[in-house]
Parts: sequence; C-alpha cells; structure tokens
Amino acid sequence: MSTITALQSKDIVEGFRRDIHERLMEIAGSYGSPESLYTPMQYVLESGGKRIRPVLVMLVADAYGGNTHAALDTGVALEILHNFTLVHDDIMDRDNQRRGRPTVHTKWDISTAILSGDGLLALAYKVLLNIEEVDVRHVLKIFTDGVMDICEGQAFDKEFEQRTDVTLDEYMMMIGKKTARLISMCCVLGGSISGVSSPEQDRLGRFGFLLGEAFQVQDDLLELTSTADVMGKSLGSDLTEQKKTFVLLKALEMSDPEAEKKIRSFLDVEHHTDADFVALKSMLTDVGIVEKTKEFVQKKITKAQKILAGLDADTEHLRYLADKLSHRKA
Amino acid sequence: MSTITALQSKDIVEGFRRDIHERLMEIAGSYGSPESLYTPMQYVLESGGKRIRPVLVMLVADAYGGNTHAALDTGVALEILHNFTLVHDDIMDRDNQRRGRPTVHTKWDISTAILSGDGLLALAYKVLLNIEEVDVRHVLKIFTDGVMDICEGQAFDKEFEQRTDVTLDEYMMMIGKKTARLISMCCVLGGSISGVSSPEQDRLGRFGFLLGEAFQVQDDLLELTSTADVMGKSLGSDLTEQKKTFVLLKALEMSDPEAEKKIRSFLDVEHHTDADFVALKSMLTDVGIVEKTKEFVQKKITKAQKILAGLDADTEHLRYLADKLSHRKA
Repeated sequence: MSTITALQSKDIVEGFRRDIHERLMEIAGSYGSPESLYTPMQYVLESGGKRIRPVLVMLVADAYGGNTHAALDTGVALEILHNFTLVHDDIMDRDNQRRGRPTVHTKWDISTAILSGDGLLALAYKVLLNIEEVDVRHVLKIFTDGVMDICEGQAFDKEFEQRTDVTLDEYMMMIGKKTARLISMCCVLGGSISGVSSPEQDRLGRFGFLLGEAFQVQDDLLELTSTADVMGKSLGSDLTEQKKTFVLLKALEMSDPEAEKKIRSFLDVEHHTDADFVALKSMLTDVGIVEKTKEFVQKKITKAQKILAGLDADTEHLRYLADKLSHRKA
Repeated sequence: MSTITALQSKDIVEGFRRDIHERLMEIAGSYGSPESLYTPMQYVLESGGKRIRPVLVMLVADAYGGNTHAALDTGVALEILHNFTLVHDDIMDRDNQRRGRPTVHTKWDISTAILSGDGLLALAYKVLLNIEEVDVRHVLKIFTDGVMDICEGQAFDKEFEQRTDVTLDEYMMMIGKKTARLISMCCVLGGSISGVSSPEQDRLGRFGFLLGEAFQVQDDLLELTSTADVMGKSLGSDLTEQKKTFVLLKALEMSDPEAEKKIRSFLDVEHHTDADFVALKSMLTDVGIVEKTKEFVQKKITKAQKILAGLDADTEHLRYLADKLSHRKA
C-alpha cells in the first residue's frame, strides 16, 4: 500500500471515529434522570477507546457504497453493546482500571455497574430499532445471537479460570465467542444494512472473525509486553485472575518438561507477588513466546486480507485497518 | 361474577399457566453448555412464580380472539424479562431467598448472577424475534422502552434508599417505572399482537398500569403482614435496605407528630434487630395503615375494572384475574 493511500485511509478512519464519538455523545446526552443510571452510562460512553467496532461497520458499508447514516447508528449500537460487556466483565474480573480511568464498579459500586450495564444493553437495542430502511428482524437476530454468544464466551472464560487443563483449542473457542464474534458481527451487519448478498455477508463474517482472533491474541501479548500506562488498564490481571491466555497456553506447548513444570507451578498459586509476575514473564519470553505469538497474529491477518481480496467491494481502507491492527501497541 | 363463571376463568388461567410453564421449560431446556451460564438460567425459569405477566398477555389476546401462539411466546419473553430483573435486583438488594429457594448470587456467586441475568435478557429478545406475523419493530420498541423504564425504576429505588425525604408521589413514580410499566406492557403487547387499534392499546396500557400499581402496593403490605414461608422470599428486607415503601410513606402521612418522630427515628438506624422490626410493625399498624392500604389497592382495582368495561373485547377472564390479584395473600 502506498503512503498516500495509507494517509487517505487514515483520514477516513479518523473522520468516522469523530462521527461515532459525536453521535455517541448526542445519544448519551439525551438522557438525564435518574442520575445514578445515566451518569455512569455517559461516563463509559465518553471514555473513548479505539472505536474499532463501529469504524469497521462504517468501513464495510462504505466499501459497498452503503447507507452511511444507517451504518453510523449500527456501529454506535455495537459500540454500546461492547461497552455493556466491559462494564459487567470488569465487575466479574475485578478490574479497577479501564481506558486510564476507574471502572464503574470502582468509581461507584457494583449495583451501579450492574444497572448501568443493563441500561447500556437496552440503549443498544433502542438505537438499532430507530434505524430506518433496514430489515430490522434480520439485523436484530444477528445482534441478539451475538449477545448470547458473548455471554457464553464470558461464561467459558470464568469456567476456565477454575481449571488447569484448558487446551489451546478450548481457548480459541472461548475468544471466538467472547471477542471475535462481536468483530465478525460488525462486518456482517455493515454488509447487511448495505444490502449485500448472504454469501458475501458470510465472507465478511469470516474476515471479521479472523481479525477478532488476531486482535484478542495480540491483546494477550500486550498484557505481557506493554505497560499499564500505554494500555490504560490494569495489566497482569489476566494472570492474577488465573486466566489461561493464548500466550500462557502456547508457551506451555512450547516448553520442555522442566519449563512446563515451572510455569504450571505458578498457576497453582492463588496470590502472586510482583516478583512472581516478573519471573513468569521471563519464563514465558525465554521459550520464545513473543515471536511465536506475533507469527500467529500475522497468519490470521494474512488470511483475513485474502478474504478481503475476494470481496466484491472497494476494500482499500479495510486493508489499511487490518494492517494497522496487526501492528498496534495498545 | 357468578361462581360458575369464576370457575371457568380459573380453569382458563390455570391452563394458560401450564402452557407458559411448558414453553418456558422447552426453551430453557434447549441450551446446555456452558453450564455456568445455562444452569442458573434454567434454575430461575423453572422456579415457578405466579406467571401473572404472561397470563395477562394471553388473557388479553384471548379477549380479542387474537393469535394465541404469538401470545404465548410474547408472554414467555415478558416472563423471561421479569426474571432478568429479579436476578439482578436480588444482587443489588442483597436478597437471599426468592420463591422459596436461594437466589442465584446466593446459590452461586455475584458473577454468575450478573451473567445469567444478561443471558436472560438476551433470551427474551431471542424469543420475541422468533414470533412470526407480528410487527416486530413495533413490538420490540415497546419492549425495549419498557426495559429502559424498568432500569430507571430500579435506579430511583436505589437512590431513594439513600434519602429520607422521599415523597409518596416520588414513590408512585418509581413503582410506576419499576413494576406497573411491565404489567402495563403485557396488556399493550397482548393487544398489539392481536391487531387492536392504537387507542385500544392505550386503554389496555392504562388498565395494566393500574393493576401493576395495585399489585406493588399490595406487595408492600404483604411485606408487613405476611410471613416469609407464605411469600417464599425474605421479608423485612425492604426495611433493612431502607426502602421507602407505600406502607411506610403513607403511615408517615397519617401519623401525628409524635408517632412520625418515632417512625423516622427507625429510618435513621442502619442495622435493625428483630425486636426493632416488630416494634416498627406495630407502630405502622397502630396508625391504621393496613386498612388504608387495602382501600388504596381497591380503588386502583376498581378504576382498572372500569377501563375493562369500556374495552371492545370479551373481558370476563381479565375481570376475574384483576379481582383475584386484589385479594391475594402471597
């Protein structure tokens, strides 16, 4: 991709991001009382984030010359859904920081976080239901099946914390439901509201799914290599919560029996010191997990790019975004 | 109403209740893994309850000779929505018993209750989206506006716990959103899926709203006069959670300054002994609150029955149900 094209794509993405933020603020700002419900909802929606999901919806719609007004609100609904999952997951995972700010249950309390999460899910439906000129039953079925899958993914994630024999396949199934499914859904819905055929929607779904898998596995790696400042959220919480991430499971696969025993002994301990965490980090990097994970991510992105190439659309900006995501630092 | 007619109505209601239970079990039974999500969801749905909301949907549809298949699934979706609110509210209100069994967060944990509540809300939408031959956008808009109102009602309820100056009007607004709205929605949707006119849907909504207000105020009274065994849930929790119920607020209105001072002094204490609770009960009954509340409930029911009489439908069984609800003991 030429530098000029990349710059154009960057402008497009930035423009979409601004539109999304504005629309989100407009929607969030139209609610006032009761304060204990709407203030935390606004707090979450204004807190930024990469807005990758709604940007994807808009890029897909744009690639087919689709209805950008409908795409904006579809994207916004998916971003609100994403935020609903963050608010509830943060309670369950006891994460106290998100996007550089205290999480809702930390700033307020668990009741407030439960209720404002519920409010966000209702709001997502409300936004979707106000989009004109789409097959609302089709759109909402995809959306609702997605919500259910995301709940299943989170349930598996919590179940896996209690187990020490989780396999890499089980892990990929879990992040498929929890993360990749939502990103896949963004691409499918971006196509659906633009009136693309059902097989083309399937291809868009596969593209989004691969992108989502890459995104999540990269997140696991950043948890190991980045800092809390750059990421804007608590790091190491995956490990303290006994999460079996790609990085951990793949490192176990790659380890000789002695190294495996050492890493596993870490998993059996319930509370870790900072020194434990540093020790684990070096055990994992020693087996070459950083390079291996990057390679895995790149393979997924390459596959995703191949699907893009076969679409009946102008996918230049989508290619740019996929490429950017595979090199992200936060 | 003659005894024979009442017996016929009773049979109809019992039949609907069985249909609802069977359909709920069929839906809940079609999900298996992950167990940590679906087992608690099934636990909640199988636990019974009066099923008043879906029965109302079916009675309304029946009164207009409407589509009973669509009415069954609409009712089931509303019952699932109701159960979603119970699971999340029980966490927030720290209630440990419901329908004679431990609440989800007590039997499992808070994370499980948050997630299975979310799953129930998604399931309610899933059921609604599979109903054929209805204006799905209209039905879902009413449903989603209702979900948002219920969240607002719960938020006001929690806000009121922190305040000592809540008025009776504010209380009625809160239960309007939290309880009456859902019962009203059952009647509106029962009419909507039966193809009744918009003004008739409004009348159905007003009927349901009055019924819902009566139902909630009576619940407040039962909290004072019933026993945990009969109710199948923890009693006195309204008072320990500093809830300002109709019974309490109306009793304050009816008290002379000395009695009011005594009751208010109770509200300032954070932790109550059983003896405190017994003392408060007799203070409230002494001012005549039991009779006054029964009178209030009867007024609402009479108004509701008047609206029924003006509907263009065969409302005999609805009259029976409204009458039953005004005399319930649990």
